Amino acid sequence: MPTTAYFDNAATSFPKPEVVYNYMDSFYRSYGVNVGRGQHKLAFQAANMVEETRSLLLQLFHCPNRQVIFTPSSTEALNVIIQGQKYFNGCNIYISPFEHNSVTRILHHFETETAISVRQLPVDRNTLQYDLPLIKRDFIKNRPHYVIVSHASNVCGLVAPVSSICELAKEYGATTIIDMSQTAGLIDTNLNNDNIDYAVFAGHKTLYGPFGISGFIAKSDSELRPLMYGGTGTESANQDMPSFLPSRLEAGSVNVAALAGLNASLKWLLEKTCSVVRAKEEENRQTLISILSDFPNVHIVGAENSQNSIGIVSCVFDGYSPDSIGQVLSDHNVAVRTGLHCSPIAHRFLGTFPSGTVRFSTSFFTSSEDYEILTGALNYIEENS
Amino acid sequence: MPTTAYFDNAATSFPKPEVVYNYMDSFYRSYGVNVGRGQHKLAFQAANMVEETRSLLLQLFHCPNRQVIFTPSSTEALNVIIQGQKYFNGCNIYISPFEHNSVTRILHHFETETAISVRQLPVDRNTLQYDLPLIKRDFIKNRPHYVIVSHASNVCGLVAPVSSICELAKEYGATTIIDMSQTAGLIDTNLNNDNIDYAVFAGHKTLYGPFGISGFIAKSDSELRPLMYGGTGTESANQDMPSFLPSRLEAGSVNVAALAGLNASLKWLLEKTCSVVRAKEEENRQTLISILSDFPNVHIVGAENSQNSIGIVSCVFDGYSPDSIGQVLSDHNVAVRTGLHCSPIAHRFLGTFPSGTVRFSTSFFTSSEDYEILTGALNYIEENS
Repeated sequence: MPTTAYFDNAATSFPKPEVVYNYMDSFYRSYGVNVGRGQHKLAFQAANMVEETRSLLLQLFHCPNRQVIFTPSSTEALNVIIQGQKYFNGCNIYISPFEHNSVTRILHHFETETAISVRQLPVDRNTLQYDLPLIKRDFIKNRPHYVIVSHASNVCGLVAPVSSICELAKEYGATTIIDMSQTAGLIDTNLNNDNIDYAVFAGHKTLYGPFGISGFIAKSDSELRPLMYGGTGTESANQDMPSFLPSRLEAGSVNVAALAGLNASLKWLLEKTCSVVRAKEEENRQTLISILSDFPNVHIVGAENSQNSIGIVSCVFDGYSPDSIGQVLSDHNVAVRTGLHCSPIAHRFLGTFPSGTVRFSTSFFTSSEDYEILTGALNYIEENS
Repeated sequence: MPTTAYFDNAATSFPKPEVVYNYMDSFYRSYGVNVGRGQHKLAFQAANMVEETRSLLLQLFHCPNRQVIFTPSSTEALNVIIQGQKYFNGCNIYISPFEHNSVTRILHHFETETAISVRQLPVDRNTLQYDLPLIKRDFIKNRPHYVIVSHASNVCGLVAPVSSICELAKEYGATTIIDMSQTAGLIDTNLNNDNIDYAVFAGHKTLYGPFGISGFIAKSDSELRPLMYGGTGTESANQDMPSFLPSRLEAGSVNVAALAGLNASLKWLLEKTCSVVRAKEEENRQTLISILSDFPNVHIVGAENSQNSIGIVSCVFDGYSPDSIGQVLSDHNVAVRTGLHCSPIAHRFLGTFPSGTVRFSTSFFTSSEDYEILTGALNYIEENS
């Protein structure tokens, strides 16, 4: 197969650092046993690696006293957090206009069961800035019980001022949840911050780990109810889930293969540092925007000139639907993602609903070869349209 | 590290066939992208592999017209199935005396919410035979609404006559769920059987795949409610989960790395055939029993002479707790699992609650070297006790 210019890193980063593939394979071959469910030496080795991975995450997020709860996906992490709350009639849940279906579909389900009100945080449609005075006015009018914000939009890359929003939300006693699926490890974030109750990470995206391991950071006194019940390798005679974290929220076997991959990627990331990785991705984003801007038939949607974006750029093309452009790009070995990106509310906000956009997303590893292939494909589209 | 004699295959089979490690690594390096969330060529390759894996499972279970729903673990599969039902006051749920906490803890949770009755299927404590006439009598007295049976006990290896039990349960209109976590791929099972509604498999156990990919087989008209909500890459504008299977029950990114491993293990298994794998495991079980029987201080618990067991053998040792024996075995490089094996009800039934047993479990790959190391360790225990 010819080389693919991969611009779908917001779906999953690809490729991973070489150490991730290597350690995942070698660790799983040597210690691929069930953690915490045996007392033998192999299980100890695997358990040590898992606990080290928790520590690496706490180090990355500067919050040594918080808990790491592992889940197989960030979707599951959001379900554990959002379904684990006790909603009541009249409950006000604020979300950003950029939430993913892994937030909005959960809330939609609860709306059918309880008279909760899901409200959008005000964002200026022109500047794409969160309007903090307006948010405050809304909070005074309808007290926030929960505030859920994607740290960066998976559609247009816009970064939300999560720290300010959560600080304001806490003034009104809200529980705060930030979805860092597109930013963990990319935007250096201090979670040793009482205003942030839950922060979700996706192992396989900006953390450069493999599929199968994600999770969230919680305060140690989190009272989340379990979403899942099952074996924990601890307190087996107890027919309730163990009361302590992380066991209460981690039923079933630990994915040692995926965890080994994440362990290696975190070490890679901590050695490189978030700022170096982000600077490289920003450079890649600028290159991408500069290439796209050369084509008058291509229009960037959203935060084109924003100083506060990550390497996700959404576009529309004159005269062609995003899906048909995606097909031509695919024929020219360019990988993008088109359509609604599992975030219809973001596209409604950006005015690109229902056909969506063509989304290009970069990573630390986006190369000059990728850009050459992309430029060739865009030339072809321009010449043939 | 010295070679470990690994007798903890019931927790996860180890090692895997070489092809599993190789394909997992090579596929993930080449096509480690997000399936169904892009329309580019890499995503097509990954999607084809995932769909082929579904077909391989349907081939293995002889049920071409059923649905495969993937979950990250069999614990999650059981949660999706058991939590996805509509319970009501007076609902009778029959379980075997050998269920895992991934069944009993879920039911315990529902007992706190709804007046369901959880009842045990009668099994003769001496012969360990399921008593079908007695089961029928119970079903007449208290009509079964749900029947949940572990195909084989993860504590003593006893195989349940799931086909007869489910046939009987269906006469009374029950929904039937079998947990094949210890038997999928090992006991050749025809799921093209209207009496079985749901069958759970664990990728990383008797299917010889990696952690991170399990699931269940369902009828195409299954009406299970989702446990999890999120992106599916389909019908993104719809704020309900898609109505069709498997999308309705598969929110979030597909674990392509784990699926590649399962794809390779299924091909390995189908080529070897279940009967050859089982014959080898049975031979290994017989060798294990014969070694254990040489030690008068070791007592096998449960189905020692049963013709109908898989390679899981639980023991107690004269004068020492299972945990202390496990420690000595570990010191002698023998990996076992001691205690309650996340199945306290099985141990209550077998009379080994609360200290549990020392569990030895074999696989296709258990070798003569493993038995030599085990024999040495057992000699040491006998000489020093």
